[in-house]
Amino acid sequence: MSHPAWNLSPDRFFSPEPSQRRVARMLYESVADLPIIAPHGHVDPRVFADPDYSFGDPTEMLIIPDHYIFRMLYSRGIPLEALGIPRRDGGPVETDHRRIWQIFADNFYLFRGTPTGVWLAAEFSEVFGVEEKLTSENAQAIYDQIQEKLATPEFRPRALFERFNIETLTTTDAATDTLEYHQAIRASGWRGDIRPTFRPDAAVNIDAEGWRDEIRRLGEVSGIEVTDVARYIRALEQRRAFFKEMGAVATDHAALTAYTERLSLREADAIFQRALAGRADAEDARRFTGHMIMEMARMSIEDGLVMQFHVGALRDHNPLISQRFGPNMGADIPVQSEFTRNLKPLLYAYGNDARLTLILFTLDESAYSRELAPLAGHYPALLLGPPWWFHDSINGMIRYRNLVHETAGLYNTAGFNDDTRAYPSIPVRHDVWRRVESNWLAGLVVRGIIDEADARDMARASAYELAKAAYRL
Amino acid sequence: MSHPAWNLSPDRFFSPEPSQRRVARMLYESVADLPIIAPHGHVDPRVFADPDYSFGDPTEMLIIPDHYIFRMLYSRGIPLEALGIPRRDGGPVETDHRRIWQIFADNFYLFRGTPTGVWLAAEFSEVFGVEEKLTSENAQAIYDQIQEKLATPEFRPRALFERFNIETLTTTDAATDTLEYHQAIRASGWRGDIRPTFRPDAAVNIDAEGWRDEIRRLGEVSGIEVTDVARYIRALEQRRAFFKEMGAVATDHAALTAYTERLSLREADAIFQRALAGRADAEDARRFTGHMIMEMARMSIEDGLVMQFHVGALRDHNPLISQRFGPNMGADIPVQSEFTRNLKPLLYAYGNDARLTLILFTLDESAYSRELAPLAGHYPALLLGPPWWFHDSINGMIRYRNLVHETAGLYNTAGFNDDTRAYPSIPVRHDVWRRVESNWLAGLVVRGIIDEADARDMARASAYELAKAAYRL
Amino acid sequence: MSHPAWNLSPDRFFSPEPSQRRVARMLYESVADLPIIAPHGHVDPRVFADPDYSFGDPTEMLIIPDHYIFRMLYSRGIPLEALGIPRRDGGPVETDHRRIWQIFADNFYLFRGTPTGVWLAAEFSEVFGVEEKLTSENAQAIYDQIQEKLATPEFRPRALFERFNIETLTTTDAATDTLEYHQAIRASGWRGDIRPTFRPDAAVNIDAEGWRDEIRRLGEVSGIEVTDVARYIRALEQRRAFFKEMGAVATDHAALTAYTERLSLREADAIFQRALAGRADAEDARRFTGHMIMEMARMSIEDGLVMQFHVGALRDHNPLISQRFGPNMGADIPVQSEFTRNLKPLLYAYGNDARLTLILFTLDESAYSRELAPLAGHYPALLLGPPWWFHDSINGMIRYRNLVHETAGLYNTAGFNDDTRAYPSIPVRHDVWRRVESNWLAGLVVRGIIDEADARDMARASAYELAKAAYRL
Repeated sequence: MSHPAWNLSPDRFFSPEPSQRRVARMLYESVADLPIIAPHGHVDPRVFADPDYSFGDPTEMLIIPDHYIFRMLYSRGIPLEALGIPRRDGGPVETDHRRIWQIFADNFYLFRGTPTGVWLAAEFSEVFGVEEKLTSENAQAIYDQIQEKLATPEFRPRALFERFNIETLTTTDAATDTLEYHQAIRASGWRGDIRPTFRPDAAVNIDAEGWRDEIRRLGEVSGIEVTDVARYIRALEQRRAFFKEMGAVATDHAALTAYTERLSLREADAIFQRALAGRADAEDARRFTGHMIMEMARMSIEDGLVMQFHVGALRDHNPLISQRFGPNMGADIPVQSEFTRNLKPLLYAYGNDARLTLILFTLDESAYSRELAPLAGHYPALLLGPPWWFHDSINGMIRYRNLVHETAGLYNTAGFNDDTRAYPSIPVRHDVWRRVESNWLAGLVVRGIIDEADARDMARASAYELAKAAYRL
Repeated sequence: MSHPAWNLSPDRFFSPEPSQRRVARMLYESVADLPIIAPHGHVDPRVFADPDYSFGDPTEMLIIPDHYIFRMLYSRGIPLEALGIPRRDGGPVETDHRRIWQIFADNFYLFRGTPTGVWLAAEFSEVFGVEEKLTSENAQAIYDQIQEKLATPEFRPRALFERFNIETLTTTDAATDTLEYHQAIRASGWRGDIRPTFRPDAAVNIDAEGWRDEIRRLGEVSGIEVTDVARYIRALEQRRAFFKEMGAVATDHAALTAYTERLSLREADAIFQRALAGRADAEDARRFTGHMIMEMARMSIEDGLVMQFHVGALRDHNPLISQRFGPNMGADIPVQSEFTRNLKPLLYAYGNDARLTLILFTLDESAYSRELAPLAGHYPALLLGPPWWFHDSINGMIRYRNLVHETAGLYNTAGFNDDTRAYPSIPVRHDVWRRVESNWLAGLVVRGIIDEADARDMARASAYELAKAAYRL
Repeated sequence: MSHPAWNLSPDRFFSPEPSQRRVARMLYESVADLPIIAPHGHVDPRVFADPDYSFGDPTEMLIIPDHYIFRMLYSRGIPLEALGIPRRDGGPVETDHRRIWQIFADNFYLFRGTPTGVWLAAEFSEVFGVEEKLTSENAQAIYDQIQEKLATPEFRPRALFERFNIETLTTTDAATDTLEYHQAIRASGWRGDIRPTFRPDAAVNIDAEGWRDEIRRLGEVSGIEVTDVARYIRALEQRRAFFKEMGAVATDHAALTAYTERLSLREADAIFQRALAGRADAEDARRFTGHMIMEMARMSIEDGLVMQFHVGALRDHNPLISQRFGPNMGADIPVQSEFTRNLKPLLYAYGNDARLTLILFTLDESAYSRELAPLAGHYPALLLGPPWWFHDSINGMIRYRNLVHETAGLYNTAGFNDDTRAYPSIPVRHDVWRRVESNWLAGLVVRGIIDEADARDMARASAYELAKAAYRL
């Protein structure tokens, strides 16, 4: 039985119109081989610390850790247990990885036309050399094929790092992380440029489960007993200094809203004390986060770390899932976001200061043309991050540029980042961006909005230079 | 004098780019003749109960009942009285249907490029065999032409049902409806598959004019004296059982917001008693509706009726119109809608239960990519309905897919429904959907996002299978 | 050294697809030379009052007065002082206009693909005859070239008015303006049709700095002592009559929200008295504005002035800028806007009255398809203004039509206005509109949605007739 091949046109994601396609191809070819700058992501640094690290089997590598994949299967009625997602209580889940793989193959049609479908096609074909499109019939044979590759030295994370042509890759790490794997990478003498990113959310969200534990850890790792807000701030500053020493160029902050507010030290400490006593409420948490976002901007001005701000995900929308499987299980759902008023205090204090680079990310696309582009098109400190999460997709990228570009221009945006924990998908994700951007720019060329020379400069900026500059790499 | 013909290219609504057009045409041809599944709509079942039912004259059939048409004429200053719209007080309105038709023809240019314009062109040409484009000059001649057709047996509703190749058509009926026309259809031995849909809004909206009358009727038709909320629930359950017996596969619910909340029986009854006493306020109504939406989901899990939820129309925005002419006069205006937080209680209770199918409809397109696609791309119980009302249009369909598809995929959507009371427009509306979807899928093919084999499967799903499966037909 | 030329294809902004391009070109050619109707804008009438008025040097004409340009430079870290923007305190700013011009040229890449970039290319080439694209190297030579032109009689505002083929141009003027320049224009015997527009915001916004001064001036110019709200209304009515006498056809109103509310005379006066006493608060201001919007609609019904309503800009978001440089410095940022509920009181009172023409403008594009098109597609008094400010751009125009057209149709929209203070950019801005609209209509033609005859009518309406009719010119 012959199986269809993956659909991987060399001109994929380009307009079918011949003149635009020609320009798109030319632009794409000029950037396709540029090194990858991956300034925001979630790859586990451990995979680089051990030179012999292996990703395990195909199911372990591609399905179990990827909530983009299993949430879609779950949405069509497949229990997460059947996909081998570990339960918090250690209860039974499917352990036969070939059976999980078969379910995945049987339902692979669900990903038709989705970013996951597009990434997987290229990943299978270009990363793993699997020529045939995944079907129910060939599922086990493809499992074998990938399995075999994963066992070879060429599929060690460090080898892939070279093959993927990654210039810099950053991880995302808790404020209290000791960065031991980063230390190990450095100590190993391997030259791959892997950098941590300071993400203090767990220490900032006073209403999160485990906040007090995180504060205790913060005290331990910083050597500063965190008994009041002043010491808390000092401990965070100390951690930032440590991260910077370890190569960090940026911090990252996530919040439900973009709310910012300058609290007096006294107010901030009153909330902090309530939180330590386990008596802080939702309003306390909101104001404290708003205050800490401002504090983080202040620290960024002082220490030069670029500040990333991801706004708008309501985490753990489905308690049945989070209680059973934990966080980050594909059940975070966006909410409407407001930036104009929420960021006013922050921008009043720091938005005119060119020492600050604040990169904004949104899950509410209605804010692109209404608020984000006008803000970025005015404040020196602001850049807009690339389309994030659900919007890291072909249409998401097109909408982003169409909604942002005319007001903010290209140079108030921060290039691309893949934001992924799925390491083998990194080159593929950057390739999608480079293709879609090349085609978007080609659209401007053939409609006489820019000329080819400008388009070439812009393509290179989008693929490589903007990210490098935005993150001060 | 020679008149221009309708503009009805066989390739209409396809991209002009030849390679995309070729694929679009191929896909369209593969679905164009599939039977019509019409799982949500507002055709009056009476038209099928009487085998000799006639639609009357062209004005009676096409203009007077169609608020899509007369709202546009009204917006340019033509009084509804001049269009023969009956007044509630029985006051004088234009009765010369030829004169109304002439006004319509004189102002037909207002519909250029609108869905109504597109539907009418195909309806005139393909349903009524009118070749000439409607103008002031040929208005009366075309009136005669249609009039003549309407008098023939081929234009009886049942004959058209066959000709339109409708497999299933559902109506929308009040909870208190006795379904006498549905009974008559069954009794007649005619084999057309016409099914009722249970729409209890009039019994749920405690702040609506006439709610207490509806409760009285509910008591009568159910034989359960509705004196408290427990009996009210029982009466509704009884009606659902009756509807199901009569062929219903679904319920339908409309609300201004997607707010849901589980009230205690005690709270629910307190509100219910206030409502019976005529003392419920707006907040009572909001909470009671939110509670009843949850109750309806529970009942759906129990009786298997698919649940449709239409959110976001502020009804009767123009009291001058509703007071004079009644509801559904083209003066319902959408409002911003929030789903992520509003649906949380409902989805917590029932969203993981695959026995429930909840189909969501929105008039706020900003929620598509931000909230609805992520929700549908996670919860097993959720599907997204097709673009609704103002968005049941070529661009509305394109936006819908572009905003929804990459996160929710095709298979978390529910196919098409025409949602119309304009019976002769049904084949035309489904044809627009099939054409636009074929072209959208062709766009994916020529950009190398999916292959042709997948596109063919998806086209068939979109045109036929998804609706059939979603509504359990 | 040879320099690249401006990128000015005769087919610019048209689809590259040959069949659509052909139709777009045909439509564009049919409207390209129609006279310009400029019914809303901010050109200073002074430039027409003096027949020998000169625009000064290139920096004075193109950069210093144009916040579209300097906000983009500011966003990349260039201080406004370095661009010669005058400080309110008279403090030192760059006075070497050639040096400012050089900064502009050095950073001209920031405008790639933006409306400003598109306008400037055509303005340089078609208005000033500069063939070379602006670069760092040729910056001073181009400065000389433009400088030379500006010194010639052909570049006097009145000469350009003829050359630009402007049929009517309106200015925007405070309620208390004596219209002395308009009087001078009339007295001069010059035949250019320049009309004032009545914009009473400074007299309506009771919380604005300087409101009481404006009320004092209102008293002076009207001859009515403004001591209570009744006299205030009378004074405004008197000013409207004066404006109308001076040729005004319209009023203009800006507000943060679309809130409307009918206050009793007593409530209105109570707020007015608090405002006079300097004790009005933000809620007073909001309600008073909402009331005055209704009063203005009433007056429009009485005096026939078309009412424009611009909603959604949060002014002076960056106090550092407004304190140092004043208002309108590129730091106004849009906010989410709600129309359905906010306009209900106004539309209840006046929306069914065809004597009123109320033209709505939004900065929140999410309202286009959700609220604005349904409102305009129903209420006889409503028209939608063209894409405004940040959205007066190629993509902004395309989004506008795609989101508005199918529900509101073409004939509930008000054509184009340039809304600019940059006089030499006027023909270029109208040309962008005409091109983009021609291409949009061509897209409907080649997809079989409208025929060419309809497209021609619609192109002419969009380019010329709709604006003329909407503003009763």
